[in-house]
Amino acid sequence: MSKKRQLKLGATLTGVGTSKYTWRNPEIPGDASVDFDYYAAQAQQAEAGKFDFVFIVDSTYITEQSAPHYLNRLEPLTLLSGLGAVTEKIGLVGTLTASFTQPFTVARQFASLDHISAGRAGWNVVTTGLEGAARNYSKEKHYPHDERYRIAEEHLEVVRGLWDSWEDDAHVRDKETGVFFDPSKLHALNHKGKYFSVQGPLNIARSKQGQPVIFQAGGSEDGRNLAAKSADAIFTGHESIEEAKAFYQDIKKRAAAYGRASEEILVFPGIGPIIGRTAEEAEAKYQAIAGLVTLEDALDQLGRPFTYHDFKQYPLDEPFPDLGDLGSNSYRSATDRIKRIAKEEKLTLRQTALRFATPRSSFVGTPEKIADTIEKWFEEGAADGFIIHSGVPNALKDFTELVVPILQERGLFRQEYEGDTLRDHLGFEFPVNRYTKQRLAQG
Amino acid sequence: MSKKRQLKLGATLTGVGTSKYTWRNPEIPGDASVDFDYYAAQAQQAEAGKFDFVFIVDSTYITEQSAPHYLNRLEPLTLLSGLGAVTEKIGLVGTLTASFTQPFTVARQFASLDHISAGRAGWNVVTTGLEGAARNYSKEKHYPHDERYRIAEEHLEVVRGLWDSWEDDAHVRDKETGVFFDPSKLHALNHKGKYFSVQGPLNIARSKQGQPVIFQAGGSEDGRNLAAKSADAIFTGHESIEEAKAFYQDIKKRAAAYGRASEEILVFPGIGPIIGRTAEEAEAKYQAIAGLVTLEDALDQLGRPFTYHDFKQYPLDEPFPDLGDLGSNSYRSATDRIKRIAKEEKLTLRQTALRFATPRSSFVGTPEKIADTIEKWFEEGAADGFIIHSGVPNALKDFTELVVPILQERGLFRQEYEGDTLRDHLGFEFPVNRYTKQRLAQG
Repeated sequence: MSKKRQLKLGATLTGVGTSKYTWRNPEIPGDASVDFDYYAAQAQQAEAGKFDFVFIVDSTYITEQSAPHYLNRLEPLTLLSGLGAVTEKIGLVGTLTASFTQPFTVARQFASLDHISAGRAGWNVVTTGLEGAARNYSKEKHYPHDERYRIAEEHLEVVRGLWDSWEDDAHVRDKETGVFFDPSKLHALNHKGKYFSVQGPLNIARSKQGQPVIFQAGGSEDGRNLAAKSADAIFTGHESIEEAKAFYQDIKKRAAAYGRASEEILVFPGIGPIIGRTAEEAEAKYQAIAGLVTLEDALDQLGRPFTYHDFKQYPLDEPFPDLGDLGSNSYRSATDRIKRIAKEEKLTLRQTALRFATPRSSFVGTPEKIADTIEKWFEEGAADGFIIHSGVPNALKDFTELVVPILQERGLFRQEYEGDTLRDHLGFEFPVNRYTKQRLAQG
Repeated sequence: MSKKRQLKLGATLTGVGTSKYTWRNPEIPGDASVDFDYYAAQAQQAEAGKFDFVFIVDSTYITEQSAPHYLNRLEPLTLLSGLGAVTEKIGLVGTLTASFTQPFTVARQFASLDHISAGRAGWNVVTTGLEGAARNYSKEKHYPHDERYRIAEEHLEVVRGLWDSWEDDAHVRDKETGVFFDPSKLHALNHKGKYFSVQGPLNIARSKQGQPVIFQAGGSEDGRNLAAKSADAIFTGHESIEEAKAFYQDIKKRAAAYGRASEEILVFPGIGPIIGRTAEEAEAKYQAIAGLVTLEDALDQLGRPFTYHDFKQYPLDEPFPDLGDLGSNSYRSATDRIKRIAKEEKLTLRQTALRFATPRSSFVGTPEKIADTIEKWFEEGAADGFIIHSGVPNALKDFTELVVPILQERGLFRQEYEGDTLRDHLGFEFPVNRYTKQRLAQG
């Protein structure tokens, strides 16, 4: 009897939260985003809840307009390496750009994290949405959107190639005979491509899970294609089940076109559940959060995906301005969506800003209501799992203590970890080394 | 009454050791270089011995000829971040090249390590000696030696500038009024130089120690000048006290020419003490280690600083070959030294290979003898402290248990940590933020 398909759960860890206001909550330390112990406690909480992984979002360009959680934060690779030392089972997924990094360094650092954590590492490959970031990396302008994805694709190909430098049985380590390794199982990559030339081999072996798991988080055409072709999982976000289903089906269809099975790429909508003991309590929590948002902040927040565009220059109560191409070289899927919805729903600028600053998700209510919604999305083909935004104070604690037990009771989510690695948790097969595969194919 | 000048101690952590043979020792796991727990135990051992810091050496280019400790190893930043989570006091110094990295990324990762460890991070700035490494970073050829150091100098200047992006009192975090930070105390760097253009600001605050400590490890003219001008400490290596004194005085003199006081730059010879309960036992240990070295391995080892030059092509019993410029764009100070000594001592190739493969240091003997030698070097102006190579099995354990207590008894070394940060340990002042300094200067 095959086991019921299992829901997967991740949790973003975000220090002072994901809104401009969270840091003012008395339960959140003002310096939470650079407080390692604060992150460690959250990761341990998620591990106690048997989550598949924690997830560190990232960006690298700040201005005076940036919200608190962007301004002063730990860097993902170092943070996750520290967390690897104080957790046992939970996966550790970090965001890192392919636009301003060397594949050799990225391959090496994630492989090292993968050893430190005994096979729990994941890389969320991004291309950097904020155009200004280029100026932090000795470039006057960011690469055009489509080129960023071509670079990312080659970058990832190189990283994965480097990760296979050592076949798993290359490490002989026979103390008696003095044979440390088998040179026929160490491979230089000798990659010469359009954007990168990397000889290799990498100076670190594969880990217990073979290679780190690849996440991707872009929702544009380019992002979806990269995910469908090359990623193991995609991190997305939707307001409604209809939107989520359409996205889910689109990704699975694109993956199928690349010859990939549905279970080879998992779709994870990010959700920020607001949980109350009663529906009224949850609604009151939502209203309290939404009520904090000033119009000025909403306009700032609206501007960020357009690389901090100043929306205060437009009349507030006229239709949302025609921005032409603005934003399409930044966080394109976000800016396209804002433009589309403002147009479809005939919103003024004021309405647009407030609508996106205080989105009303389907995940507000009692623990049962939230578990119901999760089950529905999961069963109806809108999600393979969810990434819980723990920005709201106690969101992760409430979720693990109140919602996870219901999901477990319904047989949707594990009671205990079945394996040790992130690949084990997500149900992925061990990726056989490419050279070993060739060797086996040649008999 | 001013306290007696205090000796400083660091320890390299090296997995399967620093020789080609160490991994065969039954007490060292064959996969020690990728075994985080093995490193953690060593770091905790050094911390129990009240060491100032642990030190992770590094390189990034391997071939089939590389010795075991180069082939498969954890990456320094990730390793140190993990160690930061399982230690409390000891400094964490990691090697990272300035030749193939982005200053923004380096600044951010070390700053993050500095927060994770609450002010214990140090960066050992290197320029990458092995020329082949360039081919791992999309470059056909490595930069010429002098240019590498010009790049490193500018790189370091940018990193330090980025580290000052936030003044220490910029973080208001007033939950009542909602003021998170003071924008007048957040500074873009706007660096436009020959090799880098970096806008900033960095998205992470300064740590408890202000900025990570800077180490430098190059012994060439270019390396010494960079250290004298910009580093807090230099990691070196000498066979004799005369050689060490000359180097020490040279560094202090160069630093003085840059207007720096003697105590602003600390000189750390690396030593691999071989400790026995009796002189005979120590000598036997040395002979056993030296006796393992085959001529073939000695020739391989000799070739490495020349970027794996093949010395097997020359007659063994004729004078050391004339190599012209070979090696001067690789590990220049090492290759210059080999050429010089072979000439001065009129060595054949065979003699040269064996001499450098089995150097006979002054640090072989009983714990008392080793403490005497350390004291002599320290008092006579050859060292401000030492970095202990823990490659030989139990070297670190023997040193902390047998030698450290003698140094403590003599009042040369701390009994307890006096402070919390690496700067505290090394006796450096807290570096006031450059913008705060300007503000204070302007009244």
